[in-house]
Amino acid sequence: MEKTLRELAEYLQGTLENEDQKLIVTGVNGLVEAGPQDISFAVPPHVEHCHLSKAGVMVLAPEDPKLDRPVIRVKDPRAAFAALLELFRAREDVERVISPLAFVAASAKIGKNVAIQPFAVIEEDAEIGDDSVIYPHVYVGKHVKIGKACTFYPQVTIRENCVIGNSVVLQSGCVIGGDGFGYITDKKTGRHSSVLQAGNVVLEDEVEIGNNTCIDRATAGSTIVGAGTKIDNLVHLGHNDVLGKNCLVVAHVGISGSVTVGDNVTFAGQVGTVGHITIGDNCVFGGKTGITNNVPSNSFYAGFPARPHKEWLKQEANLRKIGDLLKKVKVLEETVAKLEK
Amino acid sequence: MEKTLRELAEYLQGTLENEDQKLIVTGVNGLVEAGPQDISFAVPPHVEHCHLSKAGVMVLAPEDPKLDRPVIRVKDPRAAFAALLELFRAREDVERVISPLAFVAASAKIGKNVAIQPFAVIEEDAEIGDDSVIYPHVYVGKHVKIGKACTFYPQVTIRENCVIGNSVVLQSGCVIGGDGFGYITDKKTGRHSSVLQAGNVVLEDEVEIGNNTCIDRATAGSTIVGAGTKIDNLVHLGHNDVLGKNCLVVAHVGISGSVTVGDNVTFAGQVGTVGHITIGDNCVFGGKTGITNNVPSNSFYAGFPARPHKEWLKQEANLRKIGDLLKKVKVLEETVAKLEK
Amino acid sequence: MEKTLRELAEYLQGTLENEDQKLIVTGVNGLVEAGPQDISFAVPPHVEHCHLSKAGVMVLAPEDPKLDRPVIRVKDPRAAFAALLELFRAREDVERVISPLAFVAASAKIGKNVAIQPFAVIEEDAEIGDDSVIYPHVYVGKHVKIGKACTFYPQVTIRENCVIGNSVVLQSGCVIGGDGFGYITDKKTGRHSSVLQAGNVVLEDEVEIGNNTCIDRATAGSTIVGAGTKIDNLVHLGHNDVLGKNCLVVAHVGISGSVTVGDNVTFAGQVGTVGHITIGDNCVFGGKTGITNNVPSNSFYAGFPARPHKEWLKQEANLRKIGDLLKKVKVLEETVAKLEK
Repeated sequence: MEKTLRELAEYLQGTLENEDQKLIVTGVNGLVEAGPQDISFAVPPHVEHCHLSKAGVMVLAPEDPKLDRPVIRVKDPRAAFAALLELFRAREDVERVISPLAFVAASAKIGKNVAIQPFAVIEEDAEIGDDSVIYPHVYVGKHVKIGKACTFYPQVTIRENCVIGNSVVLQSGCVIGGDGFGYITDKKTGRHSSVLQAGNVVLEDEVEIGNNTCIDRATAGSTIVGAGTKIDNLVHLGHNDVLGKNCLVVAHVGISGSVTVGDNVTFAGQVGTVGHITIGDNCVFGGKTGITNNVPSNSFYAGFPARPHKEWLKQEANLRKIGDLLKKVKVLEETVAKLEK
Repeated sequence: MEKTLRELAEYLQGTLENEDQKLIVTGVNGLVEAGPQDISFAVPPHVEHCHLSKAGVMVLAPEDPKLDRPVIRVKDPRAAFAALLELFRAREDVERVISPLAFVAASAKIGKNVAIQPFAVIEEDAEIGDDSVIYPHVYVGKHVKIGKACTFYPQVTIRENCVIGNSVVLQSGCVIGGDGFGYITDKKTGRHSSVLQAGNVVLEDEVEIGNNTCIDRATAGSTIVGAGTKIDNLVHLGHNDVLGKNCLVVAHVGISGSVTVGDNVTFAGQVGTVGHITIGDNCVFGGKTGITNNVPSNSFYAGFPARPHKEWLKQEANLRKIGDLLKKVKVLEETVAKLEK
Repeated sequence: MEKTLRELAEYLQGTLENEDQKLIVTGVNGLVEAGPQDISFAVPPHVEHCHLSKAGVMVLAPEDPKLDRPVIRVKDPRAAFAALLELFRAREDVERVISPLAFVAASAKIGKNVAIQPFAVIEEDAEIGDDSVIYPHVYVGKHVKIGKACTFYPQVTIRENCVIGNSVVLQSGCVIGGDGFGYITDKKTGRHSSVLQAGNVVLEDEVEIGNNTCIDRATAGSTIVGAGTKIDNLVHLGHNDVLGKNCLVVAHVGISGSVTVGDNVTFAGQVGTVGHITIGDNCVFGGKTGITNNVPSNSFYAGFPARPHKEWLKQEANLRKIGDLLKKVKVLEETVAKLEK
C-alpha cells in the first residue's frame, strides 16, 4: 500500500498542511514507533510531544499546535487513525469454505458464505447465520443459535442452548455458557451438591468477548450481555448476570452471580462485585473497586468498599495526614499537661 | 414437561396451599424471570419481595409469609429448587461412543460406557474409568489416570502423569498440571533458569474445576485438591498447593505455591495469598483479601494484609473518622493557644 | 533411577557428611513430602525445620546446621535441587513426527526434528524452526514465525503475523496476539466501534508464558516481551505493551495498554496498572499493587495507589493508630473544656 499525502487527506476528509509531494506513505503506526514513511496521530496529552515523533505525517485536530512537517487536520484524529488502520491493513481474508476436517453434525443448519475451519465442532441442531467465520478448535454445542457475520477465534467454547446475536466477536479461549458456580451445602457433612445450571447465555448483537473470558450460563433463564457491550480478557461473569447495552468491562473484572447492570457502564480492570445487586446506567468504576451494594445511575465510584470517587480521593488524602495528626496530638498533650499544672 | 401442583407438591414432599387444579406448570425459573406457568422459590432476604413475582407457584419455607396464590411449603426451598431444575431439564444425554475423529493411543485403557468426542486426544498409557464423558478438544496426557463418571468439557488440558478421582467435573479450558512457575535466577546476569516441574496434580473424588482455571503441577510430589472441593472460573493454584476437602474457591482467587489449606475453607473472589503458608480448617476469607501469613482454623478474615473481619470493619469505620478528627484537633489547637495566652 | 550418596555428591560437586554406603536414593522431593529413599533440600527460613524431614539425605549450604544423617553440602542448594529434578526425571521424550492428524498448510515451512501432534493447525506461510514441539490443538495463524527449540503445550493460540523467538515455552491455553481492547465511542449514541488491531506480538528468546495468559496484539507496531522474561498463569498484557528482559510477572497481573516496562522488573500477584505509563529497570511491585503513574528505576512499590514500600508500611502502621488517636483526642477535649471553665 502506497499513498501520497493528498490521497490520505482526501481519504480522511482533512486539510493538508506543509505538503511534500514526494513523500510516499507506506504504513500507519503509533507516535513513538512511526518512521519517516509512516502516518501517525496524537491527542491530548500526547499531542505536546508530537514534534518528537519521527512520523512522516501527523494527523491532528485543528486546535493542535503547528508543526514544521506535513500535517493532516481532522475533527477527530482518533477516528481518523482507526480509518487509516483499515486502509493500510485489510482485514485478513478468510476463505468461505467448510473444511472437510471440521465436524459438522448432520442436523446443524449452516448459512451462506460461512467459513468453518479444521477441527471445529458444530453439534446437533446448532444454527450458524450467513457470513460467519468459525476458526479451528471452536466448539459449538447442541441447539446453539448463532446470528450473521459473527467471528469466533480459535479455541472458543459455546455450550449447549446458548444464543448469539449478529456481528458478535468471540476472542480465543473464551467460554460462553460454562456451568455456573452453584451448590447446596449439607450443613452436617459440609458436602456441596451441584445445582443443575439449566439456563443459557444470550449475547446480543455486536457484543465482543475477550480472550479466555468466562460467561457462565444461568441456573434458570438467561445470563445476558446487552447489545454493543465489549468485554476484555480474563473477565468472569457469574450465572444470571444481566448487563445492559454498550458497557465496557476491562480485564480481570469479576462480577458475581445475579447482578443487574444498566447501559453504558464502565468497569476498569480488576473490579469485583458481590452477587445479587443492581447497578444503574452510565456508572464508572475505577480500577480494583470492590462493589458491595447497589449503585445508583450516573455514579463514579472507587475504593473498597466502593464509594463516590471524590469521597475516596478525600479519604486517601486524609490517610496521608495521620502522621501529621499523631505529632500534633502529642504536642497538644504536652501543652495541655503544662497548662494543667 | 407438564406437571400439576399436586404432582409437584408430592415430588418435593411439601404441603400445597391455595391449590389451583387447572394450573399446569411447564418450567422452573428465578423469582424475577418466572412467568404464570413457572414454579419459583425464595429465601431471605428475597422472600419479602416474592409477592411481586409472576411465578404461578412459589416454593417457600413454613415460616415464610402467606401468599394469595399457590404455594408449596418445604423445609429447604433452595434444595427443592435444585430438585425442580433436575425435574424440568434432564441433563443433556451424551451418546456413549468413541468418535472415530478422536485420537486414542493404542496403549490407553478406556473403561465401559465412555464417550470420547471428536478431536479429543487420549495419549499413551492414559486410563479413563467407566461412565466418563470427554468432550471435543480435550487433551489427556501420557500416563494420566482418570476415575469413573467424570465429565470433561471442551478444551480441557490434563498434562502427563496427573491423577483424577471419580465424579470429577472439569469445565472448559481449565488446565490441570501445567508447569509451575519455578526459576533459579543468576544474580550476576539476571537470567532465570526454569526448574523442571517433575511432580503432578491430584484431584480427589467429586472435585469440580471452573472454566479456564489453572492448577499447576508440583515441582516434586503432588499439588492436591481434596475431595468435594469446588473451584470457580479463572482461579490460579500454584505448584505444591494442598487444598483440603469441601473447600469453595471463588473466581479470580490466586493461591501462590506451597500453600496448605484445611477442610471447609471458603475464599471469596479475587483473594490472593503469599506462598509457603498454612491456612486452617473452616476459614472464610472476604473478597479481595490479601493473605500474608499463616491463618488459624475457624478464622473469618478480610482486608490486606488479612486480619480478623471485625478488626477490618473497625479499621474501616475509624478511617471514615479521620476528617472529623482533623477538625477536632484544629479546634483544640486554637483553644489551647488561647488558653496559653 | 538409583543413586548412591557418593554418586549424588559427585553429581552435585558437593561434600558428603555422614555417609551411609547402603542407602540407595530413588527420588527427589520437597522437605515435607520426602521419604527415607529421597533426597531433599532446604534454604532459610525452612532450614531450621530440616531435622524434621524424613528425607534420607539433605542438600544444605556450608553454613547450615549439622544433622545426624547424611548431608551433601553445596554452595547453592536450590540450584542443586533443580539439577536433581533433571537427574531423577528426564524430560518427557516427544517423538519428532508430524502427525497425519494435524493440519499443516502447504505453504508452511517446517524445520528439522519438529513434532506436530494431532489436531494442531499450522496455517499458510507460517514458519516453525528446528527442534520445536507443537502439542495437540495448538493454532498457529498465517505468517507466524517461530524460532528453534520452542515448546507449545495443548490449546495454545498464536494469531496471524506474530513472531516468536528461540526456546520459547507457551503453556496450555495461552493466547498470543488476540485483538487488543480498542474502541472509538460515539458520544451521542454510546456505540463503541472497534479499532482494527493491525499490529502483532513479538516474544523474544527464552520467554515463557503461563497457562491461559493473554497477550494482545498491538494496534500498530508490536506488543513486545523481552528476552528471558517469564510470565505466570492468567496474566493480561494489553496492546502495545513493551516489557524488558528477564522480568517476572506473577499470576493475575493485569498491565493495561501502551505500558513500557524496563529490564529485571518483578510484578507480584494481582498487580494492576493504568495504561500509557513507563516503569524503569529493576523495580519490584508487591502483591495487589495498583500502579497509577510512571515509576523510576530501582523502586520497590506497594499499595494502591502505588507508593514506596516503606511509605506503605508506615501508612499501614499509622492506620492502626487511629483508634488510639480517637481516644486521646476525646481526653484532650475533656481536659481542655475543664481548663476553659
